[in-house]
Amino acid sequence: MSKPLFGAIEAGGTKFNCAVGTSPTDLVATIRIPTTSPEATLKACIDFFKDAAGKFEKVSSIGISSFGPLDLHPNSPTYGSITKTPKAGWSNTSLVGPVSKALDCEVYIDTDVNGAALAEHQWGAAQDVKNLVYLTVGTGIGGGGMVNGDLIHGLVHTEMGHIRVVRCAEDKYPGGCPFHGDCFEGMASGPAFKARWGEAGTKLPMDHVAWKIEADYIAQAISNYIYVLSPERFVIGGGVMHHEGLFPLIRKRVVEILNGYVDSPSILKNIDKYIVPPGLGDNAGVAGGIALAARRKR
Amino acid sequence: MSKPLFGAIEAGGTKFNCAVGTSPTDLVATIRIPTTSPEATLKACIDFFKDAAGKFEKVSSIGISSFGPLDLHPNSPTYGSITKTPKAGWSNTSLVGPVSKALDCEVYIDTDVNGAALAEHQWGAAQDVKNLVYLTVGTGIGGGGMVNGDLIHGLVHTEMGHIRVVRCAEDKYPGGCPFHGDCFEGMASGPAFKARWGEAGTKLPMDHVAWKIEADYIAQAISNYIYVLSPERFVIGGGVMHHEGLFPLIRKRVVEILNGYVDSPSILKNIDKYIVPPGLGDNAGVAGGIALAARRKR
Repeated sequence: MSKPLFGAIEAGGTKFNCAVGTSPTDLVATIRIPTTSPEATLKACIDFFKDAAGKFEKVSSIGISSFGPLDLHPNSPTYGSITKTPKAGWSNTSLVGPVSKALDCEVYIDTDVNGAALAEHQWGAAQDVKNLVYLTVGTGIGGGGMVNGDLIHGLVHTEMGHIRVVRCAEDKYPGGCPFHGDCFEGMASGPAFKARWGEAGTKLPMDHVAWKIEADYIAQAISNYIYVLSPERFVIGGGVMHHEGLFPLIRKRVVEILNGYVDSPSILKNIDKYIVPPGLGDNAGVAGGIALAARRKR
Repeated sequence: MSKPLFGAIEAGGTKFNCAVGTSPTDLVATIRIPTTSPEATLKACIDFFKDAAGKFEKVSSIGISSFGPLDLHPNSPTYGSITKTPKAGWSNTSLVGPVSKALDCEVYIDTDVNGAALAEHQWGAAQDVKNLVYLTVGTGIGGGGMVNGDLIHGLVHTEMGHIRVVRCAEDKYPGGCPFHGDCFEGMASGPAFKARWGEAGTKLPMDHVAWKIEADYIAQAISNYIYVLSPERFVIGGGVMHHEGLFPLIRKRVVEILNGYVDSPSILKNIDKYIVPPGLGDNAGVAGGIALAARRKR
């Protein structure tokens, strides 16, 4: 019997990436759809899967890894919807409903960062652990995670980018989060970095204070996640992390902040293998969709 | 068939409480043992269970809820030990080993706060949820938690009291944590409160700025835990929380800090039922031991 085909939808604020394949490294069809209205965008996604079904075979299930906030309560009447979002026209938009109705297959959904965490666990840089955090530092900051092999859900879903951080003494930037001002995302997202140092800021050398400050906020957040979740691995992606020189700065600062309190060789001796870039590169979104589709119903 | 008897050891820095019973509300024998040397203390515990076995029946298993840090890796050669602790004489002390050897029964162990979280889930204020945090604010600050019905473990165990908090503008206290200075525990533990306001500080009226500051640090921590774990309930115990007027201050401040970002009725409408005192009062330690003993092996 051939391997089953899965469908993936990476639902983002500027584009929807769809794919069909048996795994993230074996995609038989992909498409990039600009995010316009919910109706037009979802119709384009559905058309892609119908078209692919004619060329290959029908996907056995579809996984959606989406921007949020999402309603992920299985028993909720609005399960599988984007709830209240600043993205115009997208509040209270059901994603699972229209897709499962049009394509008559099982549709699974989770946040983009939980999808990425699952994909990194399955195929990427966290295959050997059951407790992990996937963090993205880019236009926004978000984190998803797994405890004992289960993705973290609860009251809603995680919003790891909005924890509070202690302001660096050198930093006068007021913070850019519309909800919290100087929370982690408000201080350390890509837009915050550019607001502070200008468009050319990302070209500053790695020994510039700009990167010291950036690394400090990210290390503060990681240290807090360590105290709250005790993950066995951090996988950090997103546009800001393309500056690979950031990794050594962050690792060093995490060790300084923890100050020996967490007595584990992973931190004290092998932090290079503890805080790592994604094994799946920038494909975590689509890979997350495939991973959600391939996973048995929770 | 009668209900099985379980044994509990609440291992603390000043005392070990042991109990035998079918549940936390049905204890047939209890004893309080002062914490001296590991050998003498554990011998007194073992003698208690031997004595109880003669009077009642042999316990089917024993649960230890202990101060930490602990080695909880099932495959570790030092599983069930206290690792590196400032408590003199107790570093690298096996708790599970001597107890299981002397009493020839299954012995389970976890942190005191994870034990309390499990007990509150089983018999206390969090029976209706599978994602929760138990926080204690007393001599120290610690938190345990559950994700999807599993206690949180990973690299080591949680150390929720050591996350960073943003200093209140009115607060000049440098912080009392020997590792991190002004972390959450360093700023908001019972000793920190007394260092700031004196022994009589706890008699200050609830509208004094002392309580505003205390509530602010606790609310900052809770808000961070919400972003990282999205728990469905917070159960908060410990000596500082005996000042019940703190609960309304904390709840109000959590709502202010989140600022509408987490769109859930539990926070926006029913926060009185979201952040609550323990259902088991101050018995969470022994109850945690019973709960760990009664739980199937993980």
